[in-house]
Amino acid sequence: MTPSDPVAAFRTALGEGGVLTGSDTARYTRDQRDLMQGEADAVLRPRSVAEVQALVCLAKAEGFGLVPQGGNTGYVGGATPQAGRRQLVVSLERMARIRSVDPLDFTLTCDAGAILADAQAAAAAHDLLLPLSLGAEGSCRLGGNLGTNAGGLQVLRYGMTRDLVLGLEAVLPDGSLFSDMKRLRKNNIGYDLKQLFVGAEGTLGIVTGVVLKLWPAQNHRATAWLQLAADAPIPEIAAFLRRETSDLVTTFELISASSLALVAEMRGAPTGFATGEGGAVLLELSSSSRHIRLDDVLMAALESLMERGWITDAALASSEAQRRAMWAVRETIPEGEKHAGGSVKLDIAVPLSQLGVFLVRAGAVLAERMPGVRLSFYGHVGDGNVHYNLMVPAGEDRLAFTRRVEDGIAHEIYAVAIDLGGSFSAEYGIGRFKRDLLHRYADPTRLTLIETIKHGLDPDGLMNAGAMTERP
Amino acid sequence: MTPSDPVAAFRTALGEGGVLTGSDTARYTRDQRDLMQGEADAVLRPRSVAEVQALVCLAKAEGFGLVPQGGNTGYVGGATPQAGRRQLVVSLERMARIRSVDPLDFTLTCDAGAILADAQAAAAAHDLLLPLSLGAEGSCRLGGNLGTNAGGLQVLRYGMTRDLVLGLEAVLPDGSLFSDMKRLRKNNIGYDLKQLFVGAEGTLGIVTGVVLKLWPAQNHRATAWLQLAADAPIPEIAAFLRRETSDLVTTFELISASSLALVAEMRGAPTGFATGEGGAVLLELSSSSRHIRLDDVLMAALESLMERGWITDAALASSEAQRRAMWAVRETIPEGEKHAGGSVKLDIAVPLSQLGVFLVRAGAVLAERMPGVRLSFYGHVGDGNVHYNLMVPAGEDRLAFTRRVEDGIAHEIYAVAIDLGGSFSAEYGIGRFKRDLLHRYADPTRLTLIETIKHGLDPDGLMNAGAMTERP
Repeated sequence: MTPSDPVAAFRTALGEGGVLTGSDTARYTRDQRDLMQGEADAVLRPRSVAEVQALVCLAKAEGFGLVPQGGNTGYVGGATPQAGRRQLVVSLERMARIRSVDPLDFTLTCDAGAILADAQAAAAAHDLLLPLSLGAEGSCRLGGNLGTNAGGLQVLRYGMTRDLVLGLEAVLPDGSLFSDMKRLRKNNIGYDLKQLFVGAEGTLGIVTGVVLKLWPAQNHRATAWLQLAADAPIPEIAAFLRRETSDLVTTFELISASSLALVAEMRGAPTGFATGEGGAVLLELSSSSRHIRLDDVLMAALESLMERGWITDAALASSEAQRRAMWAVRETIPEGEKHAGGSVKLDIAVPLSQLGVFLVRAGAVLAERMPGVRLSFYGHVGDGNVHYNLMVPAGEDRLAFTRRVEDGIAHEIYAVAIDLGGSFSAEYGIGRFKRDLLHRYADPTRLTLIETIKHGLDPDGLMNAGAMTERP
Repeated sequence: MTPSDPVAAFRTALGEGGVLTGSDTARYTRDQRDLMQGEADAVLRPRSVAEVQALVCLAKAEGFGLVPQGGNTGYVGGATPQAGRRQLVVSLERMARIRSVDPLDFTLTCDAGAILADAQAAAAAHDLLLPLSLGAEGSCRLGGNLGTNAGGLQVLRYGMTRDLVLGLEAVLPDGSLFSDMKRLRKNNIGYDLKQLFVGAEGTLGIVTGVVLKLWPAQNHRATAWLQLAADAPIPEIAAFLRRETSDLVTTFELISASSLALVAEMRGAPTGFATGEGGAVLLELSSSSRHIRLDDVLMAALESLMERGWITDAALASSEAQRRAMWAVRETIPEGEKHAGGSVKLDIAVPLSQLGVFLVRAGAVLAERMPGVRLSFYGHVGDGNVHYNLMVPAGEDRLAFTRRVEDGIAHEIYAVAIDLGGSFSAEYGIGRFKRDLLHRYADPTRLTLIETIKHGLDPDGLMNAGAMTERP
């Protein structure tokens, strides 16, 4: 420590291990998609709520902005400080404790820095389920999941992160602590303030703890790989399955022929699975009850789908190994894209009823404006979310192609989605990369409300400046 | 209309039928529980969003405050203008249109003035379920349900009103329209502003429309009346049933012996149902699937409960008539209370795991401080909500007893609930009657945040002054 050390006061408050500088900050200042090299004067690693409160007060006094960061696995640069901003990253990686699991209340209480997979495991140890599940679960942290209102693989049945939050605590920009860590399903005492911090991308404060809803562990599963007929009506199929299974569907993932091919290319071998002319669906039912014959329910539903001509073939997983093989295909599509040179990911949502129209219209845009560009689309279409990814053409620089897409055709595809009542950001959020889109597509009243709330809670702009709330 | 008519401008804007004055305002200015006689210069009845925008601008210009009102069925005086405040009621009863039902999206879109039962019926016509269900459903309006974040009979399975809201539009205090009427399950574009209006009790604007989630109609049901053993562990029973039925439980209503007795007294005849030493539970499973044998699932679960000694008897409804008879008992408890002279309703929530401790400790408070006062407790304990109601003693004035309870023992019972991590307002909200409680029990940070948001969105205090956000 020297007198000229700009973060000396933080070292005193947080201890030596609590402040990283220089090259130690590298892994905190580059975004997950490798699109942006940021910069921070230091990375702060508090160990307690009190330390978070202290560092917020210090930052305010010393004129630093703060960028809260979870596992740094987001796709929109929401946790990456920009160069030249005099910002500090606040990483909650040393506040990763599971505080309690309460089986009779079906709740899990933990620090916001807890890794999602650890929280899942803590629930599972009590034969309970934390249904939030996504590719990055081994390294993402719950504070980040809350900040981005993460979606993932089981939204269809259990909702977004927002829907799982019963309680929350956050350190506000003035250093005070908002604490609402109750394990209650019902507590109507004015504005639901905790929801304001979910999806706020760290712009209103630093979430330090959370109470999440749990479910009985779903120890019974029935899984199938469906080949869709040409022009199979995906929304009708999804609706039919909801009804026929009484909403025991946890997974309804569309996999296009092109996405399946990417997996086979990466493996250098066929996957053992095939799409129908309309693509494929990975379908999974799950239940906690030993009294429901899930295989029978699935079989009956699939027979009806065959009779209707909506599917041409279905393979049921008759062992856990088969089930894992099906899942492995779905889960390795992103790797398949990376192996083939990478992709630009358009995170689209449409009302499910409009999915077919969207695919036709967006496909036409693509064929006209970027003929020959390879498409990989797949995703959680059961909830209207499709990952519509354009593959980087062979020989083209990934970053250059990303710019070309994002400055051009992406807007035309977003326009199709929005015209159908959809969204340009289903689950990734706004962060730093989609601010221009927010300000282009959101109506002025929404933008005014966002600024009113931001200004009211964070008048000095301490929290995550440069992210979502800032005009581009 | 005379030149001195204080609401002349509103008559011009809304037409003659759009403005009620004098005795025509009576039914809008008295609260549901008959505890407060309010006063309004007029009742405004707009027919369109544009008329709501116009009246908001006029009110601002003419120095009137506005009190949004749905069906006027709330329990906390949230929609009742206080005398001497220069306020106008805004009733949305002429904006009651069901705009659309979208079966593939599982959504219903309607005006905020739609009556809940009409919305339920519109969903049912498409073989879909709008799960919000409460005693007042024949007259309450969705705008009121949103404003109070209504709970009701199926929260255990489907959540509060908040959890059902996908889209919302509201006229803000400056007359601008916030419109977010998308039918999307996923739309991560910054703060979830629509949630701010849910549970806001009309203090931030006038909600004019809503998009609600629907489910497949639950056309299969299995219903039982359980007699609980002495010291039956209710939280364990509820948890066990969730697991054994894979969360197909839609109803888990506790009925105490005293509440059952009130129904019998009112009828002047036995109900045909009995409580065990630990009370009774009305249990219902429901499903949309013809492939799940719900009766078998229920039977198997009840056998396990008997084996464990948690229930001493169970009657299964083998016909719709028997089912209705069971439900009639539960649904007429409030009438039974009224017939016996009325009650003071304490709307308590505790973490379910703490329910037994709460009942013991609150019972001890009651026995010591108000010996002989009759208790009626019942309710949605599956989600930790118990209606803990003190009967008005024979010969005592209802209002006087209400004051005596609310100024005295109620606080001791709330203190027990809060000490156990509970709430003094599970589902009724704050309104005008519980403002003192909010400001007594909420921590300063919460109150500051409420005031910051209120001031940011409604700097002139136009919306529902005197309700939740105002300091007592």
